[in-house]
Amino acid sequence: MLSAADVAKHNSSDSCWIIVDGQVYDVTEFLHEHPGGSAIILKYAGRDATEAYEPIHPPSALDDNLPPEKRLGKVDPLTIVKDVAKVPQPASQVQPLVKFSLSQMISLHDFEEAAQENLSKKAWAYFSSGATDQITLAMNQSVYQKVFFQPRTMVDVSSVSTKSTMLGHPVDIPIFICPTGMAKLSHPTGEVSFAKAAEAYGIMFMMSTNASSSVSDVVKARTSKPAPPCFFQLYVNRDRSKSEALVKNVTASGKFGAIVVTVDAHVAGKREADEKVKAEVVLESGITGTGTAPDAKGGGIGRAMGGYIDPSFSWADLPWVRSLSHLPLGLKGVQTVEDVIKAVKLGVELIYLSNHGGRALDTAPPALLVLLSLRKHHPWVFDRAEIYIDGGIRRGTDVVKALCLGAKAVGLGRPFLYALSYGLEGVEKAIEVLRDEVETTMQLLGVTSIDQLGPHLLNTKALEPLIPDPPILSASIRARL
Amino acid sequence: MLSAADVAKHNSSDSCWIIVDGQVYDVTEFLHEHPGGSAIILKYAGRDATEAYEPIHPPSALDDNLPPEKRLGKVDPLTIVKDVAKVPQPASQVQPLVKFSLSQMISLHDFEEAAQENLSKKAWAYFSSGATDQITLAMNQSVYQKVFFQPRTMVDVSSVSTKSTMLGHPVDIPIFICPTGMAKLSHPTGEVSFAKAAEAYGIMFMMSTNASSSVSDVVKARTSKPAPPCFFQLYVNRDRSKSEALVKNVTASGKFGAIVVTVDAHVAGKREADEKVKAEVVLESGITGTGTAPDAKGGGIGRAMGGYIDPSFSWADLPWVRSLSHLPLGLKGVQTVEDVIKAVKLGVELIYLSNHGGRALDTAPPALLVLLSLRKHHPWVFDRAEIYIDGGIRRGTDVVKALCLGAKAVGLGRPFLYALSYGLEGVEKAIEVLRDEVETTMQLLGVTSIDQLGPHLLNTKALEPLIPDPPILSASIRARL
Amino acid sequence: MLSAADVAKHNSSDSCWIIVDGQVYDVTEFLHEHPGGSAIILKYAGRDATEAYEPIHPPSALDDNLPPEKRLGKVDPLTIVKDVAKVPQPASQVQPLVKFSLSQMISLHDFEEAAQENLSKKAWAYFSSGATDQITLAMNQSVYQKVFFQPRTMVDVSSVSTKSTMLGHPVDIPIFICPTGMAKLSHPTGEVSFAKAAEAYGIMFMMSTNASSSVSDVVKARTSKPAPPCFFQLYVNRDRSKSEALVKNVTASGKFGAIVVTVDAHVAGKREADEKVKAEVVLESGITGTGTAPDAKGGGIGRAMGGYIDPSFSWADLPWVRSLSHLPLGLKGVQTVEDVIKAVKLGVELIYLSNHGGRALDTAPPALLVLLSLRKHHPWVFDRAEIYIDGGIRRGTDVVKALCLGAKAVGLGRPFLYALSYGLEGVEKAIEVLRDEVETTMQLLGVTSIDQLGPHLLNTKALEPLIPDPPILSASIRARL
Amino acid sequence: MLSAADVAKHNSSDSCWIIVDGQVYDVTEFLHEHPGGSAIILKYAGRDATEAYEPIHPPSALDDNLPPEKRLGKVDPLTIVKDVAKVPQPASQVQPLVKFSLSQMISLHDFEEAAQENLSKKAWAYFSSGATDQITLAMNQSVYQKVFFQPRTMVDVSSVSTKSTMLGHPVDIPIFICPTGMAKLSHPTGEVSFAKAAEAYGIMFMMSTNASSSVSDVVKARTSKPAPPCFFQLYVNRDRSKSEALVKNVTASGKFGAIVVTVDAHVAGKREADEKVKAEVVLESGITGTGTAPDAKGGGIGRAMGGYIDPSFSWADLPWVRSLSHLPLGLKGVQTVEDVIKAVKLGVELIYLSNHGGRALDTAPPALLVLLSLRKHHPWVFDRAEIYIDGGIRRGTDVVKALCLGAKAVGLGRPFLYALSYGLEGVEKAIEVLRDEVETTMQLLGVTSIDQLGPHLLNTKALEPLIPDPPILSASIRARL
Repeated sequence: MLSAADVAKHNSSDSCWIIVDGQVYDVTEFLHEHPGGSAIILKYAGRDATEAYEPIHPPSALDDNLPPEKRLGKVDPLTIVKDVAKVPQPASQVQPLVKFSLSQMISLHDFEEAAQENLSKKAWAYFSSGATDQITLAMNQSVYQKVFFQPRTMVDVSSVSTKSTMLGHPVDIPIFICPTGMAKLSHPTGEVSFAKAAEAYGIMFMMSTNASSSVSDVVKARTSKPAPPCFFQLYVNRDRSKSEALVKNVTASGKFGAIVVTVDAHVAGKREADEKVKAEVVLESGITGTGTAPDAKGGGIGRAMGGYIDPSFSWADLPWVRSLSHLPLGLKGVQTVEDVIKAVKLGVELIYLSNHGGRALDTAPPALLVLLSLRKHHPWVFDRAEIYIDGGIRRGTDVVKALCLGAKAVGLGRPFLYALSYGLEGVEKAIEVLRDEVETTMQLLGVTSIDQLGPHLLNTKALEPLIPDPPILSASIRARL
Repeated sequence: MLSAADVAKHNSSDSCWIIVDGQVYDVTEFLHEHPGGSAIILKYAGRDATEAYEPIHPPSALDDNLPPEKRLGKVDPLTIVKDVAKVPQPASQVQPLVKFSLSQMISLHDFEEAAQENLSKKAWAYFSSGATDQITLAMNQSVYQKVFFQPRTMVDVSSVSTKSTMLGHPVDIPIFICPTGMAKLSHPTGEVSFAKAAEAYGIMFMMSTNASSSVSDVVKARTSKPAPPCFFQLYVNRDRSKSEALVKNVTASGKFGAIVVTVDAHVAGKREADEKVKAEVVLESGITGTGTAPDAKGGGIGRAMGGYIDPSFSWADLPWVRSLSHLPLGLKGVQTVEDVIKAVKLGVELIYLSNHGGRALDTAPPALLVLLSLRKHHPWVFDRAEIYIDGGIRRGTDVVKALCLGAKAVGLGRPFLYALSYGLEGVEKAIEVLRDEVETTMQLLGVTSIDQLGPHLLNTKALEPLIPDPPILSASIRARL
Repeated sequence: MLSAADVAKHNSSDSCWIIVDGQVYDVTEFLHEHPGGSAIILKYAGRDATEAYEPIHPPSALDDNLPPEKRLGKVDPLTIVKDVAKVPQPASQVQPLVKFSLSQMISLHDFEEAAQENLSKKAWAYFSSGATDQITLAMNQSVYQKVFFQPRTMVDVSSVSTKSTMLGHPVDIPIFICPTGMAKLSHPTGEVSFAKAAEAYGIMFMMSTNASSSVSDVVKARTSKPAPPCFFQLYVNRDRSKSEALVKNVTASGKFGAIVVTVDAHVAGKREADEKVKAEVVLESGITGTGTAPDAKGGGIGRAMGGYIDPSFSWADLPWVRSLSHLPLGLKGVQTVEDVIKAVKLGVELIYLSNHGGRALDTAPPALLVLLSLRKHHPWVFDRAEIYIDGGIRRGTDVVKALCLGAKAVGLGRPFLYALSYGLEGVEKAIEVLRDEVETTMQLLGVTSIDQLGPHLLNTKALEPLIPDPPILSASIRARL
Repeated sequence: MLSAADVAKHNSSDSCWIIVDGQVYDVTEFLHEHPGGSAIILKYAGRDATEAYEPIHPPSALDDNLPPEKRLGKVDPLTIVKDVAKVPQPASQVQPLVKFSLSQMISLHDFEEAAQENLSKKAWAYFSSGATDQITLAMNQSVYQKVFFQPRTMVDVSSVSTKSTMLGHPVDIPIFICPTGMAKLSHPTGEVSFAKAAEAYGIMFMMSTNASSSVSDVVKARTSKPAPPCFFQLYVNRDRSKSEALVKNVTASGKFGAIVVTVDAHVAGKREADEKVKAEVVLESGITGTGTAPDAKGGGIGRAMGGYIDPSFSWADLPWVRSLSHLPLGLKGVQTVEDVIKAVKLGVELIYLSNHGGRALDTAPPALLVLLSLRKHHPWVFDRAEIYIDGGIRRGTDVVKALCLGAKAVGLGRPFLYALSYGLEGVEKAIEVLRDEVETTMQLLGVTSIDQLGPHLLNTKALEPLIPDPPILSASIRARL
């Protein structure tokens, strides 16, 4: 067993050891491969990095990424002296007291306002930010407000049902918790609370490859109660064998109902709010000088987290990913009618329209516009695959509008991260709020079941001028397509 | 006769007695039926609830809703000790001094600004709020501002008449006071002032089922002077026999000219400002703990008031409601061209386009857009029924625009509630302001009588792109319609 | 000769004498005819009203409006004691010091900002305000900003001329000073400065019937230097003989080139800022109690000034007004294509598109939209009459846009009233600023003379969707037209 | 050798000597020819003007503009006493400390915010301002935000290249540094830093005739490393022989790849922020009294700098300008489809769409709209000439959008001026930021090389309604064209 003093000698880029969860790792050679840059690791060189590591990595990340010989053994816990003055506060430390009581939360906007107080600055920056000028981020919400309802009156709505199905699994409401990274930045229970709340309310939870809880923690959180399975969101790893192992593990657990590959984040979007908060922290702690700053782009968590994602993943890899599991396959982040049609023709079961919450490419179109384009020009796709959608959903009215246009299920990400700042109870309250809003909307529209929803209940005239034409292509471009 | 001390023993959910207007009621079994939740009643358990009860219920509400045996008898008034420190201030207590003088009110916007000062916080929240994000609330006003006039010049406008008719009854101006609940929250004279002012100025007052004054008070307020009759707005009760009794009573009074059934509020809209003010009060008074809060949705008056409304009321019930009275029948809250046509074909005499002041379903379309759609595509309906409209009307120009497009009469709700904070004189001043604005608008348009108004005086190009197309329906949806 | 003490006895509505310019008038019977209400006169009952009277009435107004026997004779000036403490400050008293120097004024916006400081509160309210919600007022400016230029490059623009003609009279720039009331509220030289500056810079000044200077003062201000004549704006008086005398006087002076009848202000628009400032003054001076307030609408100068205007003036009166003078005839305030065509067919020489600076009917269309409608659908009218335009013009670019669409001349009102707060020099500087901007715009557009301007230099696509269709008329309305 | 005392005697408009860089000049006769007015020179009459002269003039400007006999000889440096109290601070004095560190700059917006602190007030006003109401300035940026991408997913983007060519010269990124005046106002290294950074990153720098560095300084800054040549922007001088000499000098240096004539600034735009800051300085220094102010329009640098530009330059001069150099010819500031077509037909190799950064004619259209018009209606032009564009580009997404529509290269002006406040390193960081954003955008769009970009990757529906129609022309105008 090593002592902390042994570890402390390896405190530079020449030899860099860190302690995580009582284990000592030699990360010297890994420094330059770390997606978040070496600077963040060097802050903990020769020291215990557990508090900073845990909230933003799955437990097995180090073991997965380092060769076995770099795992040097356990450290004697008695030798560790917490060096509080020098180690920066881990960003994930949850505030002990929330400013507003959960009973005051009667809308998802309330949760967002509260989260801005409840979360650390860094967590807020990471969750709330979008790419560059955040135009897509803002438009994701505003487009829903431009769609009018056409409410039918004098219909018996004394009983209403929000039940539906997702890939054949019954759900109590066709909404789901989107795959988001690092839920533990909001609350220590992290994705486990998502899994529990989804089960309790009969909705689907789609777990992210970047989850801060492990697959086994999520699996353990589920009971034997009948409930929709989780779905698993997959980022394809540059080391394909890791993805293979992961998907097989997920499939084998028996608790997941689909594998959904993200296709819109093969490179990191530029989220400047996220980059800037980290930058400030680095500068404040005075650890890196100007000349030695290893990364001139800032210090975004998002960029750091995505470093392992394979930018070469393409349509040609579809058979490979299909071969990894018997579960139905989905593609998340499809953004054009052309790609939807391509995916449908290739037999993809689930097509998830998303612009990554406005976090990938700014001025990417709101997914609602893609959905509307499909509805207007290619309604046949809705019979060939299940179309899911996320981005900007904050109200039951938003959910119902997407369902009216043909979405089979509607996802929310940030609102649940914000609600999670109240722990499991917060996530449950958020689902209740949304369920009530969906029911009320249906009743005031004059419908009593999900299958009665349709485009005849909407007036989308304000958005229709934005539906794209077939493209104007030069001959040379046309030849390449 | 009971003593206050006897009553005070029944101060819990196990046995809950309250005093209203000197009568003692056992409301233990009613607690869980109260549309506003039991918490609000429990605040007065064992005590005198008159001050909180009166402004928001018609006098007979308790007697109507409880079986006779729950009416326990009178309390000895001498035994009641006002417990000022503990009883929260009734929200309806009208401020003794208004901040701005009535002579400064020269527009309806002035009344609105003044009301924000004159009214209690709760009354303001209840009156002013709309559903969820209040998009429909805001758009109700803004759409009128997008319609241009096409004023014709060089017309002799030395005399101008605003006279018209409503269902055959002569009116001095084709405007009316909308049915709104709980006018007493604005001023103790409540709906009685509406009835008197309407008579004095020759306009119509449509009384609400949720009025805080009783039908007989309103009937008594009217003199024998020739004036347009009141109309009566009906919420259909889950207990249909109560609606039958009510309509028969209204009809028998001889002071009403139509029964107008509301069809857009079979479930309560979500008015968060309203919900939140109540929530704060509950928390402030420290009566309910976190775990025991009986209603997680907040404490909205609107939701409380609507609990008795029958969500099963449908087109199939039209013959029943028609059978209750010989008076002409209207439907309030129609929001689509399809429902207007259906109502016209079923012989409904009055079709009232409304989105409930933006208080029911957010992003429901502004009624002006429905009116414009009718004018463009189905102008024949204006010859088959009288079309009324409300929502967002604040100016004489707004009134004239709706009349130009074919509305037979134009209603205003909130502005009269705000004016009522000055009592009867306030309501009269508001009518004067509006009458002057309507007259001036007509003269500057180059018309001298209501029947000269028409769409040729408007430029509605800014709104026309929003007129909905015939819906895109899948075969399965079409089959269901 | 009367003494001030004699006059002071007649200080009530029973007997009301006032002194103006040394003359004593008995205005008792006139009190109720005064367009501005009796209250404002009663403030000066029994006293010298000269300072309040002068800036807002032409000198002969009292003699014109009272029968000769009400002119009681001169007052002995030695008997007058100025009662400074009690007489409210006349609103027209020009601030002795301006806050910004004239050399800092390099745009018309600068003049507007400065005027807000230089002018009295009441003058600012009267000049700057528009009708009700001021939507037309704001849109008058914003529509110009939605028109793009299409600048042509590589044209020799080393010399550029802004010369043009108006009704055959050469002008150095085709802009003019609009007819506005009460210029003396801005500066004691009033309209005389307008007349002088217009002459000096070779532009046209259109004098208002509501001018605060007299016709003879304006005539005297002009030299024999060649310059475009003034035009005269006429409000038709309820007493037609007064209009006849006025037009004959104007014509006989030989200094005017056209009579332009205003057709869009037969009743007063509702300018609430104007109404409210007066109200405050009345309340402040404590002269009228609540019960005796003679006018519940407020105290607007605009409404007061317009009381004599004949609301019966119509197309049938065109031959009469034509018969009063040999000068060319114009109509000011035409707002629809239909009325333009009617006027052209009746041989009117000058058609002046205007919505009265947004002061008459709110949501009347911007005149630029009417001009654009004519250009698109009825370009032949530009060959049959001269089309003038005003409303929202603040920049040389605005002027050039209107000229490109076919306007023969472009008027500005408020900017010159604001510039006048610096006296004659201010008005001259404003013309210089505008001339330079027009020249620069022409050069950057690639044109060197006014006749080269045309719609090919504009992109009006942002406004074209607002051009009205032919109206949708019911048969009964069509029959009436 | 003259003494400073000799010079000091010539300190008025009757005889005005100044010292620049140790040389004494008699500028008495030049006073009235100085484009910036005489006042600015008179401030230095009889004194050393070097500090004020240098940052805003090329070194040889005085020698070029004065006859040889006005160069009076050298001054004895020992006789010069710095008169700090009286000489105003030269506007170009770079702040010694920048407020934000360069490492915090992660977007071009960051550089803009920092520059507002780093630069002098006057430099900020000159660089940042646009013409009059700055509508074009604002729209230049906002139009890019209205174009949506249509990102294609599942493409192998593991390697991406931004390489392209400009007039046959390979470039690493098809962006360039726009020609801007007076870079030394931002940093003493001025255009030399632009030339060095452009070489280092393989992009093109277009040098302005109004550069504050000389041609030879820029030439000297370049190494022999292979890099795209500079291009030279030419303002045609009223004295054509000066332009001839300049172009021959530029051509002879061998470091330039094209001559690009500016065609949209033959007269100065009205940049009021620029005019106003100078005005304040003049007033503060108390040198000019109100009556003697030599220029009532303010004190804009922009206007001063442009005084020599020939407003008569026209299409007829194209053969002359072509004859001056064998280099390819470009036109900068083309703003209509018509002029593009004309230029293409005349064989111009490079057409540079620009509205001069919103600094010339306000409400000129954004260049992106002209590019879109060409793409929609005249795509053949892209095969006949290289189309460049600038105006409002702040993001890699903006660059890629312009490239998708057919631009061969995309210029940025202000962002590089702002980055220059950090010297050479700032400019290099700005290029890096932009390069990273372009690469990320391409990857997220699913493309790996510039030639794969095309309009099929954009949704331009929000802008298409603004594409101008063919103009409506009267016969007389048509005849003139």
